[in-house]
Amino acid sequence: MGIKLKIIKDSTPAADGFRMPAEFEPHEGCIMIFPERSDSWQYGAYAARKAFVKIAEVIAESEKLTVCASEAQYDNARAMLPDHIRVVEMASNDSWARDYAPTFVKNDAGEVRGIDWGFNAWGGLYDGLYFPWDKDNRMARKLCDLLEKDVYDKRDFILEGGSIHVDGEGTCMVTESCLLSKGRNPELSREQIESILKEYLNISTVLWLPCGIYHDETNEHVDNICAFVAPGEVVLAWTEDESDIQYAMSKACLDYLEKAVDAKGRRIKVHKLPLPKPVTMTAEECDGLDACWDEPTRNPGERLAASYVNFYISNKNIVMPGFGDPADEKAKRILQDLFPDREVVQIYARDILIGGGNIHCITQQIPRNQGTLTL
Amino acid sequence: MGIKLKIIKDSTPAADGFRMPAEFEPHEGCIMIFPERSDSWQYGAYAARKAFVKIAEVIAESEKLTVCASEAQYDNARAMLPDHIRVVEMASNDSWARDYAPTFVKNDAGEVRGIDWGFNAWGGLYDGLYFPWDKDNRMARKLCDLLEKDVYDKRDFILEGGSIHVDGEGTCMVTESCLLSKGRNPELSREQIESILKEYLNISTVLWLPCGIYHDETNEHVDNICAFVAPGEVVLAWTEDESDIQYAMSKACLDYLEKAVDAKGRRIKVHKLPLPKPVTMTAEECDGLDACWDEPTRNPGERLAASYVNFYISNKNIVMPGFGDPADEKAKRILQDLFPDREVVQIYARDILIGGGNIHCITQQIPRNQGTLTL
Repeated sequence: MGIKLKIIKDSTPAADGFRMPAEFEPHEGCIMIFPERSDSWQYGAYAARKAFVKIAEVIAESEKLTVCASEAQYDNARAMLPDHIRVVEMASNDSWARDYAPTFVKNDAGEVRGIDWGFNAWGGLYDGLYFPWDKDNRMARKLCDLLEKDVYDKRDFILEGGSIHVDGEGTCMVTESCLLSKGRNPELSREQIESILKEYLNISTVLWLPCGIYHDETNEHVDNICAFVAPGEVVLAWTEDESDIQYAMSKACLDYLEKAVDAKGRRIKVHKLPLPKPVTMTAEECDGLDACWDEPTRNPGERLAASYVNFYISNKNIVMPGFGDPADEKAKRILQDLFPDREVVQIYARDILIGGGNIHCITQQIPRNQGTLTL
Repeated sequence: MGIKLKIIKDSTPAADGFRMPAEFEPHEGCIMIFPERSDSWQYGAYAARKAFVKIAEVIAESEKLTVCASEAQYDNARAMLPDHIRVVEMASNDSWARDYAPTFVKNDAGEVRGIDWGFNAWGGLYDGLYFPWDKDNRMARKLCDLLEKDVYDKRDFILEGGSIHVDGEGTCMVTESCLLSKGRNPELSREQIESILKEYLNISTVLWLPCGIYHDETNEHVDNICAFVAPGEVVLAWTEDESDIQYAMSKACLDYLEKAVDAKGRRIKVHKLPLPKPVTMTAEECDGLDACWDEPTRNPGERLAASYVNFYISNKNIVMPGFGDPADEKAKRILQDLFPDREVVQIYARDILIGGGNIHCITQQIPRNQGTLTL
């Protein structure tokens, strides 16, 4: 707080010298939202909450973690989470901090500000996933207020945090399937969208992957298929099974990346990260999901968008999902080799996947303003 | 937040070298709660909110102010309050930050911690003012979590912040009518209550005024009748009208104070602060109050506990109530003479008084940890 706190409508991060740091740059903290919604999280979210708590505990080893809980779940969140994790009361429609907590930008002096994008539940009335989404859409500003960060008001542009990845050196990576979807900013051209990303993230190059993970209901967010592990270097979710529809999708991304040049003029180095075998909903899991309006939220046999790419980079760890699949170990080894300075922790994440996303989707990092972090 | 945050159950502030500073010592900030409850605040709290905002603006001139708002009122609070005042979402049953925000204590190194007292709406099922009070009772801990302060758990002892005043030099002032009331800690003797106050506020002397302001529904909180203006020096609400029931009450307090000796062995210097003429509810005001259960909250002609003593001491100002009474000016002059380094600001407070308290009741200061405050 303080006299200087403000909502910025007449300028942009680029104009003010702010840029979005890469996720592997130092963090001050992280934001998560305690899960509760009974049409997202099977059997009243009990299993999901346990998985969230495990993830929270790993992140809090090296970052200041704030967990938002509804009034109804506040006491439970406080009881389930260790004391050194901050729990604050904040209403939400669901628990996807990546997508509607602020995107944070930082200047050379170390000042951190938020961006408040518009949020419409991944497609609004066109192909959004739930209605209403008003509480989610309020969270970015509430969080900036809480964290005492000035905030750029860009609510006239629909964007989720999971639909962008930056390398911290001028390049942003997105998917066409998501950013050009009809449910977000149909009135804007690809060039206009690029221009907004450049102004708000302070980048000069946008890499447009064609698509994401099959049946990813976010219109295929980039953060489930491809992630920067260093400037000029990415992991790409990959299958060798050419009969799987995902093969063509991952291959299309690979083809694009092999021809791409980033903001620094570099070719992109692509590391293939294996996908688990297709993960599908069981009848018992479907029984544990409330209906969303008058339709079942999921159906038995429905394929879920499982991917190891959906990991979170904390100061000390790579927090990655596991699915009880033979590829768990291999994916872990690959990430461990790519992040020699961080310890990879794999957390069984089927109970998060059922909700529609994974570890990256339920976290949002706050860049370190300056100096060393004291926990 | 940070690894060290904790809920302290096995120690006390005195044992740990923490004490409650006087209100006139430097503040870091202040807490308020946005009013909403339609059986407390007439005509949907519209007038009360305007008065709260005026008070907030004065306090925020020299302190970091955090205003808690319900989910329903969050947007409205954010719109009505200037950007430099922090608004956080937090559920409450009503808006009396003095009584259920934490009491803060501080050690010589400048560390600040909270105390989480039990709260039962000024008398619980015996003579409390509303039911339930669960949201209020959760606020102290939620606020400590939010503000990243360790917190002493003393929820087994019922106490409101408005029922204590300290001079910062070892003396605490309370009223017998409140602290010995049957609705709070009936199982504890006066000596046991003193002993808890000594341990938690780190004081050595308790001054027991017999009573407070007539018809003060808090069982006559001390903060409506008598307040420290300096160590060894108080203002006492006073009337010269011997036919008024308040005369005998104020006189009983004066008699007590004239014989009292504080922790430093000083006699108490008493400054009489005139009371306004009795303020009573109008029929129109009563029409604008929802019923509380099946009874009217207030009745036409009902006397309200109006008193100028219910002021807040901010770093820069004395924020005091006015009632449109001829004594407004005189009371303001007296306080201005007693606080030469602060500017007295008088705010018309009938709309707060109708809710059952006044400016001191709706504020809670956070002591400055150390150094200078930058806004």
